[in-house]
Amino acid sequence: MKITAVQPFYLKMPQITDAADGTQDTLLVRVCTDEGIEGWGECDASPLVSLAAYCCPMSHGNIINICESLIGETLDSPKDVLRLHEKALRNGLDIQQIHHAYSGADIALWDIIGKKLGEPIYRLLDDSSDSIAYSKLPYASVLFGDTPEATYQIATCLREQGYRAAKFGWGPMGKFGEENDIALVRAAREGMGQDAQLMIDAGVVWGTDHETAYARAKQFSPFSPTWLEEPLSPDAIESYGALSKRNPPVPIAAGEGSGTYRMAEDLILHGGIQFVQIDVGRIGGITVAYRVRQLAERHGIQYVNHTFKSHLSVAASLHVFATNESFDLLEYPAAGSELSQNLTVERLEVAADGRVRLTDTPGLGVRVDREAMRKYLVPVRIQVSDREIFQSLDL
Amino acid sequence: MKITAVQPFYLKMPQITDAADGTQDTLLVRVCTDEGIEGWGECDASPLVSLAAYCCPMSHGNIINICESLIGETLDSPKDVLRLHEKALRNGLDIQQIHHAYSGADIALWDIIGKKLGEPIYRLLDDSSDSIAYSKLPYASVLFGDTPEATYQIATCLREQGYRAAKFGWGPMGKFGEENDIALVRAAREGMGQDAQLMIDAGVVWGTDHETAYARAKQFSPFSPTWLEEPLSPDAIESYGALSKRNPPVPIAAGEGSGTYRMAEDLILHGGIQFVQIDVGRIGGITVAYRVRQLAERHGIQYVNHTFKSHLSVAASLHVFATNESFDLLEYPAAGSELSQNLTVERLEVAADGRVRLTDTPGLGVRVDREAMRKYLVPVRIQVSDREIFQSLDL
Repeated sequence: MKITAVQPFYLKMPQITDAADGTQDTLLVRVCTDEGIEGWGECDASPLVSLAAYCCPMSHGNIINICESLIGETLDSPKDVLRLHEKALRNGLDIQQIHHAYSGADIALWDIIGKKLGEPIYRLLDDSSDSIAYSKLPYASVLFGDTPEATYQIATCLREQGYRAAKFGWGPMGKFGEENDIALVRAAREGMGQDAQLMIDAGVVWGTDHETAYARAKQFSPFSPTWLEEPLSPDAIESYGALSKRNPPVPIAAGEGSGTYRMAEDLILHGGIQFVQIDVGRIGGITVAYRVRQLAERHGIQYVNHTFKSHLSVAASLHVFATNESFDLLEYPAAGSELSQNLTVERLEVAADGRVRLTDTPGLGVRVDREAMRKYLVPVRIQVSDREIFQSLDL
Repeated sequence: MKITAVQPFYLKMPQITDAADGTQDTLLVRVCTDEGIEGWGECDASPLVSLAAYCCPMSHGNIINICESLIGETLDSPKDVLRLHEKALRNGLDIQQIHHAYSGADIALWDIIGKKLGEPIYRLLDDSSDSIAYSKLPYASVLFGDTPEATYQIATCLREQGYRAAKFGWGPMGKFGEENDIALVRAAREGMGQDAQLMIDAGVVWGTDHETAYARAKQFSPFSPTWLEEPLSPDAIESYGALSKRNPPVPIAAGEGSGTYRMAEDLILHGGIQFVQIDVGRIGGITVAYRVRQLAERHGIQYVNHTFKSHLSVAASLHVFATNESFDLLEYPAAGSELSQNLTVERLEVAADGRVRLTDTPGLGVRVDREAMRKYLVPVRIQVSDREIFQSLDL
């Protein structure tokens, strides 16, 4: 089978705001083959910047675009997906955006190989022939309310919707003193109930100040959070290390910003985190995310997805760690734009038992709803010298 | 003073090949102010991908382009340059390319502030009022010849040109067995003479194999190389750490691929390198490179620039570490395209004493030769929806 086309699509909502909502636009990637099998992927990245990595003119041997690396290539087995990953990243070594951008292509290639071999992706990633896709406990990601009272209302609402786990993020956290921080966490716990899993996302509010992060971990521990997420800046690995060495009473989670395998490895080895959160649409796709999963297994820490995109990304994320029963939690986008909510025909719904599971459909197991997406398609044209190097196709 | 315009320019040679020559194209950045002072910077990056980071539509609060972050801002002091660095990188947190792209803008902002305050940049970076710009020993970067004989010829030629230091890179290194590797280094030393400084750049040929890297360091040590550069993959920090722990008899150098401060810090703290090589056009400009210089000082290792671009980049690189006398070596692009050679009006020439020094001209101290560059300018047009979000200006 040969790759005949690699097509990025820029989709967006009519209005974009500066709210921290990554579902307002997206970059979809379609890969086509000469056998008529096609695959899809999604990047959690700046659509235009990643699109440029698909079509930029060659600068030298280390700046060669993704389309050039893939088109015409042979694709018959999972080994080819790994080989092409290596090739594209080697060709794009000096394109910093390459990992974000290639994520979509890598997911699409796995989708194709799964369809061709008649297997769901998770089974192709795992060597053991009887690999099982375990169900996961989805947790809703929401923001803290502006006050403890508002937070309590949000938590109560989630409990009534049936969520048995929820993560509360940033907003007022870390901004109005320790008493308010504690009151926020207490309110979230009271609203969710004692039996729910509660996660706290500090949204990097304490920068490099691991002393305050440690103090908060101690103060939050009576409310038994599953983790305290990103108390420190993503690059403050030495501060993470200092925090972890003090053995805080709440486990520390981080890693969503990992744009390379090394960034995740660095956090695990030198940051001492206990939950590593990987975005399959940023780190270079399923191929790299799976390597981080294996690293987490070797280090006895828990792998969790980071996902705030469509169900295409939820499915891609879940294939990475579905076969590890003890990696039980799934970040599940409970909200998000219409674009994101309607991107796929199939959805990974929460079952009656409150859990989410993959089906055995070959490939990703979800299809892009091309009809529904057409209205979000942004036409893009890029001209360099007199040559049109990119023009959006129809979906 | 207010920033009124931020303009990226894509320049290229008429023909681009896949040779490992990063001077075939470039992204120049001009920043204009309402006082008529303008500054220039250069990125060592994919021009189109970085250009996209200057003009990409907002996706959410963490994907806001560089022009948006800078235009209209106040610029009166070095503190403003630091503040704007933080702002632009915060706004572009989820644009992976942001550090490569912002490098040009950061250099241009320092150029402006230097011109405004009537000071060369190096004096604004250093707190001590009597800071001196020390001269540096330039080393030529060349490739090994295909054979030891060819390498000997190249080295002899460099010596005749007056170079007292030279770095020989990759080509056949690591590809034809240890005897050939040793013969290459011996030939380079014999050609350069015993009193010259000789550096060996292995071009990441041994991947994660720190055993072989250690063995070669031992085998090369009789030829007294100043360093062995990039024996391992840029991301193989744990392998670098394992190599350094064995205390190889030749110092290890690395770091040119650092696209963030953390990548350099990671190499220093966990890779145990002894020379850190920073590209001011990749790591986020003078601001970040200077922080790495300070880190190198704290750790007692040597800072060296990585530069294979125009003399604008050589000047920007040199301002970063000019005031540290013991950081004595300067990577000096002895070759490179016409575009790169002619980009600036002034050049940092090698003086009669074989050394390179900055002048006390305010700002960078070199000006872009706009007339000469006009013929290399690549017109770029980017349309998103019905809006033209970028169109190249005249130089």
